[in-house]
Amino acid sequence: MTQNRNIVIIGCGASGGTAAQFARKTDRKASITVIEQGRYPQYSKCGLPYAIAGVIPDFNDLLEFSEDWFAREHINLLLQTTVEDIDHQNHCVIARQGTNTIKQSYNALILATGAKPWIPPIEQLFDHNQKLIQGVFMVRTFDDAKQISSFAKKGKKATIVGAGLIGLEMADCLYTKGMIVTVIEALPTILANTLDTDLTEPVLKKIKEHISVLTNHLVISTVSKNGSITGVVAKEKETTNETRIDTDVLIISTGCKPDTSLAEKLGCSIGAKGGILVNNRAETSIPDVYAVGDCTQYVDFVTNQPILIGLGSIGVRQGITAGINAAGGDYQLLKGLLQTCTSEFFGVEIAAVGPTSHRIQDFSVVSGKFTGSSLPSYFPGGEPITIKVISQEETGRILSAQAVGSNAAQRINTFACAILNEMTVENLRKLETAYAPPIAPTLDAVTLACDVVALKMNRRQRSP
Amino acid sequence: MTQNRNIVIIGCGASGGTAAQFARKTDRKASITVIEQGRYPQYSKCGLPYAIAGVIPDFNDLLEFSEDWFAREHINLLLQTTVEDIDHQNHCVIARQGTNTIKQSYNALILATGAKPWIPPIEQLFDHNQKLIQGVFMVRTFDDAKQISSFAKKGKKATIVGAGLIGLEMADCLYTKGMIVTVIEALPTILANTLDTDLTEPVLKKIKEHISVLTNHLVISTVSKNGSITGVVAKEKETTNETRIDTDVLIISTGCKPDTSLAEKLGCSIGAKGGILVNNRAETSIPDVYAVGDCTQYVDFVTNQPILIGLGSIGVRQGITAGINAAGGDYQLLKGLLQTCTSEFFGVEIAAVGPTSHRIQDFSVVSGKFTGSSLPSYFPGGEPITIKVISQEETGRILSAQAVGSNAAQRINTFACAILNEMTVENLRKLETAYAPPIAPTLDAVTLACDVVALKMNRRQRSP
Repeated sequence: MTQNRNIVIIGCGASGGTAAQFARKTDRKASITVIEQGRYPQYSKCGLPYAIAGVIPDFNDLLEFSEDWFAREHINLLLQTTVEDIDHQNHCVIARQGTNTIKQSYNALILATGAKPWIPPIEQLFDHNQKLIQGVFMVRTFDDAKQISSFAKKGKKATIVGAGLIGLEMADCLYTKGMIVTVIEALPTILANTLDTDLTEPVLKKIKEHISVLTNHLVISTVSKNGSITGVVAKEKETTNETRIDTDVLIISTGCKPDTSLAEKLGCSIGAKGGILVNNRAETSIPDVYAVGDCTQYVDFVTNQPILIGLGSIGVRQGITAGINAAGGDYQLLKGLLQTCTSEFFGVEIAAVGPTSHRIQDFSVVSGKFTGSSLPSYFPGGEPITIKVISQEETGRILSAQAVGSNAAQRINTFACAILNEMTVENLRKLETAYAPPIAPTLDAVTLACDVVALKMNRRQRSP
Repeated sequence: MTQNRNIVIIGCGASGGTAAQFARKTDRKASITVIEQGRYPQYSKCGLPYAIAGVIPDFNDLLEFSEDWFAREHINLLLQTTVEDIDHQNHCVIARQGTNTIKQSYNALILATGAKPWIPPIEQLFDHNQKLIQGVFMVRTFDDAKQISSFAKKGKKATIVGAGLIGLEMADCLYTKGMIVTVIEALPTILANTLDTDLTEPVLKKIKEHISVLTNHLVISTVSKNGSITGVVAKEKETTNETRIDTDVLIISTGCKPDTSLAEKLGCSIGAKGGILVNNRAETSIPDVYAVGDCTQYVDFVTNQPILIGLGSIGVRQGITAGINAAGGDYQLLKGLLQTCTSEFFGVEIAAVGPTSHRIQDFSVVSGKFTGSSLPSYFPGGEPITIKVISQEETGRILSAQAVGSNAAQRINTFACAILNEMTVENLRKLETAYAPPIAPTLDAVTLACDVVALKMNRRQRSP
């Protein structure tokens, strides 16, 4: 008698849920169990700000795969279940659901344990029970978002710590709800992990038309009354001047760190960035154990340096990989991460692919920037688009690209394809792009940004 | 004493004008002369329908480079000047401007003589002076468009022969003007040079919500009164049934043929498709003679077969090439044409790159199609997008792609980049695309269309 394959997935976020889905697609007969400590099956974390804003009408819309879906696919979904131990010698997971202990054996184990928010050192953030004081929130879970939603009232004040993608998405969404919003960022610039400073400047200008943004400021403590937050104290890093900002809500979006506790128990190698080390098959250092999503680290395609995941689009692709491989298939991710990403706040679309300038300081680079219109000059309704391209000086190979404005995301996808193929600016500028007056100019911003870099390179080669 | 370089360009369309511009950028001292038989310097031919529609407020907006611009750049622009002969032995162009004969010597000659409309055999199309009867127009020139504009009145009837890109753009624009529009196409399908039939079906359905489209019909004659058109007779090709359609205007947009008369006089090789043969430096078979734009033919990147140009985006890139090379620089086009193109009619954006199915019948292919939303399912406001991908069966290499719907053009640019790099569907499906709920799903239509093809290929490999 042939034994069916037995797959256990810990964590039902986007990566874990996707792993379950693709394991099922690969092996219709496998026994698949997903263990999730929260109350909900797979939902879109990235969609949470938009549900808070009311743009997505109902929080339940964010549930991408319902309990019914898992039942129909014969995937054993254990919610509100916490893994207490893993006996890898005997390939068995020991979990607790309420007062019950569950033992679930496996042939293949997929860790999708996600990440935990990193909380900066802010005084009086916790009450005497080590709980966040009332009105202070993270934006990691469904329940976080629902609670924020109940506080997000027109005319009330919101303060957000951290001007990364999630911080600014939250800022836009709370502004949409009619709140008076302040964003406080410790670094001198917003979106420091995504865009170079010269590209963030016009974005920051646009954002400041709607909300307050304090860069170079640390939130050093909260002010509260009867256990509820009423304000924060922010310190300007250079002058050390302190400002008190009244607020009804404080959102902390200062990044995350991989949750590797179970992986460490198992003895999986942990990388220099603090994530579980995985290869292009989503395998950890331990046979039969895979890991996916925010708990892992992989390598940057361009720099070959380790990087944490932190993007749903990558987590999902890892989930596909681990799901297929755990179910006996053979699927490999590309040899490194491009970190293609996008977002939109206050009507400005941004997108980027490849490392920002500060992450490629070891390379000798030539960079260039083009700003123009999404349409030919004679056609009404064109929208501004800026594209910056960074290429390697010796070879002309494109290392990264960043865009702000019209269709930034789809334009950056073309650069992602170019980077993956190690194309030079000289060749990408010659790519025939789609042209029609109501849609794009004969020479798109994609082309013209490459032109700027190619011309700079030619000039340098002529005058050494 | 060094003699300055002397460049003569015949034709001031987009290709010729661009050649002049890049020749000047390359050699600030060269003598550059542009000879144009029409009354206007470089203007956007592709923009003409939108000026007729009134979307572009003023016809003069279409003038991309004014006479002043040429003067400032010290480019000698001769309008309303017809080249009568070229004495290549003595490197001299003989032209007529009114009653004057102009002799202009050159070191390098660039032919940008464009194309002439191909007119189908329609009875009673011309009057006894061999002029088109009143109310019948092509859409090639500024003057054509201005005349059409004076006929394009609300409530009047327009008939368009030819359902290619320009025919349908005109249909949309005349509909926008409030006209009652009928499009008549000889082939069984619209956009036959751009999209496969399965992709045109939803486009045709959308178009038919607004105007009449008769496919498989030939216009066999006009009906006129006092020298002005009042209708056409269209014949259904299979049944040979004839229908009379009343019309106030007849627009003929049934394609063009390269104008190679001067090139033939010079002895330039003419290719199998009827265009001047050029290489990747825009050189003809005659030394010091370049050719660019609609009068030329080049090779298809995928099939390696000769193809006519017919796209402004390619003509401009050839213009850049010829301009730089004629001025002593060194610039090469890519090794073949992708024919990336796009358009929009009745609110539907379409785009394509690479040969349509009927042009790659010699290849053994696997094709697949994905239809979905431009946004995650939970996010409101997503728009439909369909992408079809055709790949080579043996290798998985992507040969062409077609898209209908949201951001079709920018999505197709990513495929253009993939095709140029001879990527496989297997690798493109793994490309990290930009994801954020308000902008694109975790797995974009670009990815999912490749998935469909990759899965088909895997299935075929498993079951030979």
